[in-house]
Amino acid sequence: MAFYALIMAGGGGTRLWPLSRRSRPKQALTLVGERTMFEHAVDRIAPVFQPDEVYVVTGADQVERLMLQAPELPRENFIVEPMGRGTAPAIGLGAIHMKRRDPEAVMAVLTADHFIRDVEQFRRVLVAAARVAERGHLVTLGITPAFPSTGFGYIRQEEQLDGVDGFPVFRAQRFTEKPSPETAFHMVESGRYSWNSGMFIWRVDRIMGEFAGQMPDFYAQLAQIESVLGTPAYEPTLQRIWPEVTPQTIDYGVMEGAEDVVVIPVDIGWSDVGNWSSMREILPADEEGNVVVGEHLGLDTHNTILFGRDRLVATIGLENMIVVDAEDALLVCPIEREQEVRELVRRLREMGRKDLL
Amino acid sequence: MAFYALIMAGGGGTRLWPLSRRSRPKQALTLVGERTMFEHAVDRIAPVFQPDEVYVVTGADQVERLMLQAPELPRENFIVEPMGRGTAPAIGLGAIHMKRRDPEAVMAVLTADHFIRDVEQFRRVLVAAARVAERGHLVTLGITPAFPSTGFGYIRQEEQLDGVDGFPVFRAQRFTEKPSPETAFHMVESGRYSWNSGMFIWRVDRIMGEFAGQMPDFYAQLAQIESVLGTPAYEPTLQRIWPEVTPQTIDYGVMEGAEDVVVIPVDIGWSDVGNWSSMREILPADEEGNVVVGEHLGLDTHNTILFGRDRLVATIGLENMIVVDAEDALLVCPIEREQEVRELVRRLREMGRKDLL
Repeated sequence: MAFYALIMAGGGGTRLWPLSRRSRPKQALTLVGERTMFEHAVDRIAPVFQPDEVYVVTGADQVERLMLQAPELPRENFIVEPMGRGTAPAIGLGAIHMKRRDPEAVMAVLTADHFIRDVEQFRRVLVAAARVAERGHLVTLGITPAFPSTGFGYIRQEEQLDGVDGFPVFRAQRFTEKPSPETAFHMVESGRYSWNSGMFIWRVDRIMGEFAGQMPDFYAQLAQIESVLGTPAYEPTLQRIWPEVTPQTIDYGVMEGAEDVVVIPVDIGWSDVGNWSSMREILPADEEGNVVVGEHLGLDTHNTILFGRDRLVATIGLENMIVVDAEDALLVCPIEREQEVRELVRRLREMGRKDLL
Repeated sequence: MAFYALIMAGGGGTRLWPLSRRSRPKQALTLVGERTMFEHAVDRIAPVFQPDEVYVVTGADQVERLMLQAPELPRENFIVEPMGRGTAPAIGLGAIHMKRRDPEAVMAVLTADHFIRDVEQFRRVLVAAARVAERGHLVTLGITPAFPSTGFGYIRQEEQLDGVDGFPVFRAQRFTEKPSPETAFHMVESGRYSWNSGMFIWRVDRIMGEFAGQMPDFYAQLAQIESVLGTPAYEPTLQRIWPEVTPQTIDYGVMEGAEDVVVIPVDIGWSDVGNWSSMREILPADEEGNVVVGEHLGLDTHNTILFGRDRLVATIGLENMIVVDAEDALLVCPIEREQEVRELVRRLREMGRKDLL
């Protein structure tokens, strides 16, 4: 069985502003240790895949940097989108590259900007999921919820199928996008839901079939690109067609309407690192409950997230605060108000401060 | 009447840490506008003194920078102490330079690191004070208290003497160093006390007489230096004697025991800029009550002191906070706890972090 990985590394976003920017998205950040999120994403699957089995789909503005960060991957495995069109087209573009190499291959769709603490368990479930996918199931990796988050999609587990390698496999019934707090509470309490991690494992021919059935316009566009794959016409064809592709997520475009979706719930210390408070999920706190990157000197400072760079961050009497010292901007705000960072970014956009976006 | 100014520019100190450092004391900082505190101190007396009538006493480590900042002053008017010995020796060293030029001169002892808003009034009182000093009084400029500070020395006003140029002159009875809150409250309420500004105006021969009577050891040391003033022996003599000089302030060493001290209370918008909250005294607040240097983008941020540099400081939900963005360190603390900055500095000293002191 051929087994390939497709690392989705096209995302932008400013949820970790002022550190993350349009030109410096989350996967480009060094949040844990000395390696970027993208480097961690490549490193952790190295024991499962040969370098030539790992593909990266990303944007033209990011591809050079990513190639430098993963020099072990063949340059032709970097698939460049002319512009972002959502996860469904990105996966489709990756799929035709893999299909050309082996139409019966299994592909793992992986993320470049999420954190996984238990990489051993993650690798085990990847291998198990590939065996499940080989049978024709569309496999989603479900994350056992750590709390009733209203920010994630949820997958409901129905009847259990045969387990594989000790991992239970459930028929997946429903994708619930960002629920209300009450709904989230009941879902988590029931023990029958897991978070949608955005990681999927399936046969290439299976997902192509879903595109054909559920996104026929896109499938037709993809077929045109596929027909010139490996020829000089590929690049101009892609440049011509991609702007006309309708943006779509894989969840809405495929998963919600697909048959034979299964979920393997796992507890792998996963975090989407979607905001500053999630630093608490990916980095250890000191004895004062502070999560510190860089040098911190604190008096009476507790439960505070301090993200510094090359200079001392000194604090007195802070509690539940966020202090982010980025190269060209500084953020100070209470953790409980971090969602307003979005408003700051909106203001900067209004002010025309592209240098800070 | 010869009238000279002696700007005391030898101070160090870290009360405005992380901006102020041993190597970058308060007078070297650009707090108001584009000019340093020292430059402001030189600028504001320019209408009263010719450049050659202005002397600066400072340390060897600072003199080059100060000369660059006040190129209009003759280089020989920069008097260099081998090391700081407190205000009394610094004034004595300045006095012998002036005495050599005109023994009956009046000298104004001025500060390099204080802020004065009403410079017109300040210049008027300087001229008036010189006329009072000419008669032989030791004149102190008293600052009409804006609040019952426990951080300043107080001068008690006794019977009123003849006024000069519209300024009342009082016999000064007592110097009270840093009183208790209760004492401070009563002193301010009585209307009979003013703050000791550290600015004095007196005849050179009068202050030399006080040194002779009250600090005879220092006077003898000073006499040795004076005897070689203007000769090649000056520098080695100074280098030999100064380490042996006992450190002393002019308040303890002379003013508390002196006869015929008078005080001219003035309201000139004075601030000693002794801590971050005094930024509120020297810089205007915006409509949210924030005092901002640099670029600030705030959501629901009020009564906060934001001292930035060349990058955006973004804040959400701050109230009565201090955020100081210095080149190599960042400070975040509530205004009401700013006295603990001293503790931070002490810790840095313990840690051997000379780079940050």
